[in-house]
Amino acid sequence: MNPLASPLLTDLYQLTMLHAYFTHDLRDTAVFELFVRKMPERRNFMMAAGLEQALEFLEGLRFAPEELEWVSGSKLFPPEFVKHLEALRFTGEVHAMPEGTLFFPDEPVLRVTAPLPEAQLVESRLINLIHFETLVATKAARSVLVAPGRLLVDFGLRRAHGAEAGLLAARASYLAGFTGTATVLAGQQWGIPVFGTMAHSFVEAHDDEASAFRRFAQVYPHGAVLLIDTYDTEAAAARIVALAPRWREQGIRVKGVRLDSGDLAVLSRSVRRTLDAGGLAEATIFASGNLDEYRIRDLLAAGAPIDGFGIGTSLVTSSDAPFLDAVYKLQEYAGRARRKRSTGKASWPGRKQVYRHCRDGGALDHDVVTVEEDRRDGEPLLVPVMRNGRRLHAAESLDAIRARAAAQLARLPARCRGLEAAKRPYRVELSPALRRLADAVDRQAGEMPALCR
Amino acid sequence: MNPLASPLLTDLYQLTMLHAYFTHDLRDTAVFELFVRKMPERRNFMMAAGLEQALEFLEGLRFAPEELEWVSGSKLFPPEFVKHLEALRFTGEVHAMPEGTLFFPDEPVLRVTAPLPEAQLVESRLINLIHFETLVATKAARSVLVAPGRLLVDFGLRRAHGAEAGLLAARASYLAGFTGTATVLAGQQWGIPVFGTMAHSFVEAHDDEASAFRRFAQVYPHGAVLLIDTYDTEAAAARIVALAPRWREQGIRVKGVRLDSGDLAVLSRSVRRTLDAGGLAEATIFASGNLDEYRIRDLLAAGAPIDGFGIGTSLVTSSDAPFLDAVYKLQEYAGRARRKRSTGKASWPGRKQVYRHCRDGGALDHDVVTVEEDRRDGEPLLVPVMRNGRRLHAAESLDAIRARAAAQLARLPARCRGLEAAKRPYRVELSPALRRLADAVDRQAGEMPALCR
Repeated sequence: MNPLASPLLTDLYQLTMLHAYFTHDLRDTAVFELFVRKMPERRNFMMAAGLEQALEFLEGLRFAPEELEWVSGSKLFPPEFVKHLEALRFTGEVHAMPEGTLFFPDEPVLRVTAPLPEAQLVESRLINLIHFETLVATKAARSVLVAPGRLLVDFGLRRAHGAEAGLLAARASYLAGFTGTATVLAGQQWGIPVFGTMAHSFVEAHDDEASAFRRFAQVYPHGAVLLIDTYDTEAAAARIVALAPRWREQGIRVKGVRLDSGDLAVLSRSVRRTLDAGGLAEATIFASGNLDEYRIRDLLAAGAPIDGFGIGTSLVTSSDAPFLDAVYKLQEYAGRARRKRSTGKASWPGRKQVYRHCRDGGALDHDVVTVEEDRRDGEPLLVPVMRNGRRLHAAESLDAIRARAAAQLARLPARCRGLEAAKRPYRVELSPALRRLADAVDRQAGEMPALCR
Repeated sequence: MNPLASPLLTDLYQLTMLHAYFTHDLRDTAVFELFVRKMPERRNFMMAAGLEQALEFLEGLRFAPEELEWVSGSKLFPPEFVKHLEALRFTGEVHAMPEGTLFFPDEPVLRVTAPLPEAQLVESRLINLIHFETLVATKAARSVLVAPGRLLVDFGLRRAHGAEAGLLAARASYLAGFTGTATVLAGQQWGIPVFGTMAHSFVEAHDDEASAFRRFAQVYPHGAVLLIDTYDTEAAAARIVALAPRWREQGIRVKGVRLDSGDLAVLSRSVRRTLDAGGLAEATIFASGNLDEYRIRDLLAAGAPIDGFGIGTSLVTSSDAPFLDAVYKLQEYAGRARRKRSTGKASWPGRKQVYRHCRDGGALDHDVVTVEEDRRDGEPLLVPVMRNGRRLHAAESLDAIRARAAAQLARLPARCRGLEAAKRPYRVELSPALRRLADAVDRQAGEMPALCR
């Protein structure tokens, strides 16, 4: 069993609610929307990602015999319910922002319209997928913004939160504009360019550094990037310069060096001087080691001659903001708009659309969130992607998504491109029609308590 | 293909290094140790977890035909190398601290002894598994310490970083002392108790709250925990009290209520009063909504009458410290101790053991890290768990691990039980023998540059 596709990858309350829905025949059409209530402090935008995995999950949704067996054996559910689950497929429709789209709080990034039990069951995994890829694409886009034209590589697998996080982080950072990843499986699964050379252990396994460098270069005579900080970074650079003439005779060319510790601004400059003076001007300098977009910004501002960056832990854990306030809320059931009014967590009711308005030069200006039937000017961001449980289009290529992401980032207003919170955040308007609907829903609810007693 | 078991779940440099190892016949025995260099600011201990998954991964390690095909097609490797990979199995031995053991910086929690290529290849996934489960077990243990005897449930799947993170977080928090999880698949895979009742969408799908409560209670007449904050928490509690007598005639008993928003200290008190006055003294109060160990500590200190807590995002992302500085370093190769001396990242060489010393009452006093051959007093924490690539014992039961974790937490010194950094951290001594070895390794290295030129 591939646990990543299991419908049991859900919260128990989805099953207990389904049990009640089936029992009481609550199977009308429900509309759920996935959105982020509030951005983390240091974010000025979010980048939508994870839709492809979400649609794959919906299309393949079914209970396998061993899963049904667990449900039966759990003693929480009667046999009729297990029959319902056995027959359950996702038959609904989905609207979504294409991956790579920039979006903001209160804007639905995905909308599910389906019979209530189907739309309910998938909540946990839909958030799980879209929340995480969006989190990492957003984090990655910040490095892309501060280091245009540099080689950016995801190095995060080892400290990602499990295997799927490592894999999806490679995908999310690549679609946001990274050059590639070190994670081999992401190369195999999606054709993402993979990068990697040597670790300290390779150097240490040799009795001297020079032998380690030579042996590695013999195996990759045109592509070796040598890791030079195992013992003494500057001495290692000098050593490579000294060895290079002999290697050249053997057809070996040093492609570059990697720094992984110490003061990278200082070291990159001194190593650059050593390489240049030693006839290795073409060799590149690649840096890694506890990097994030803040340090990269500072290194480049200091003029550090670094050609590429390996970014690991901070990227794949989005360490300065390890989660988004992403939720999936019922906005309509059986033709009636709904909303939650819990303190501090109220949501806007109804099925919605987001219209984007741009300035003449193309820069994003503001968005308007409104109810679906309120057609307005601007570019509608939610588009149909699934009907009757089937995708309307083949999976979008990562190249196409990367192009969209790059175009969106290019149009981001200057004040939202920095790493700290913009003094004036991007403007998201809630339309009068949406506010009227919320009032109507509340008025209706205001009359309820009398009815209920 | 189950991607969670794929040997391509690794960094590319592991494969490029393996290529060089095979080419140059570097297949002597290597010793790698997995340890944490430095604890996050607000941690006083870590709890080892993830060993079971790590051993499963090692035992099952093999390249499938489609994986070898990708390696061949990548153009990065020659056919001989692919043959090596095809034959590759993990044949080494593993020593480790049993899951649930408390440990501290610089202490190896796992040691791999195997031919260099095997020990190298598995680095990325071993860290990935042990880092994450340890991160979450450690985070969970903090809630266990501040809320002894309360019901603690993992609610984190939706905002966990991918599916595996959700699953493993359920396991890690349970072994650390949580009561259970909402993640159904964790129930199915490991028999962890699953908890869950209803979401706001259930309430909202009904035209009035009372109908929602009634319908849910009809389906779970003895086990319904009703979510009461969708519209107005105190009104909902009053409504339940009003409905209870009629329900009782129908054989329905309200097991409890759940609060998910607002001022939980204030609301829990007023709801408790309402329930008690209404004859529902037995109904429990369960709280959720952006909870973490800090808030739980404060709620309990304020005397909030809350019987159980659902803890989600903060737990599964370990949001106040979303990663550990966990590494896996070559400490010995071909019989010679090794160490990395990179600035700020130097490691202690040689194969090591950790001895724990306790006070008379059983409280942990201090640990000594030394080289393996330096037998000392105290309890050795690393024990053999795998030999010739096979586990030495059946998988330990989660009950046994939970018992160990509880016993360890009970013996934690008082100053290390708080949520903030202890003024005097737990003492970890590095033995004179270990320091002598490090000096010897450095002396040897000091002589190398002359040799290398």
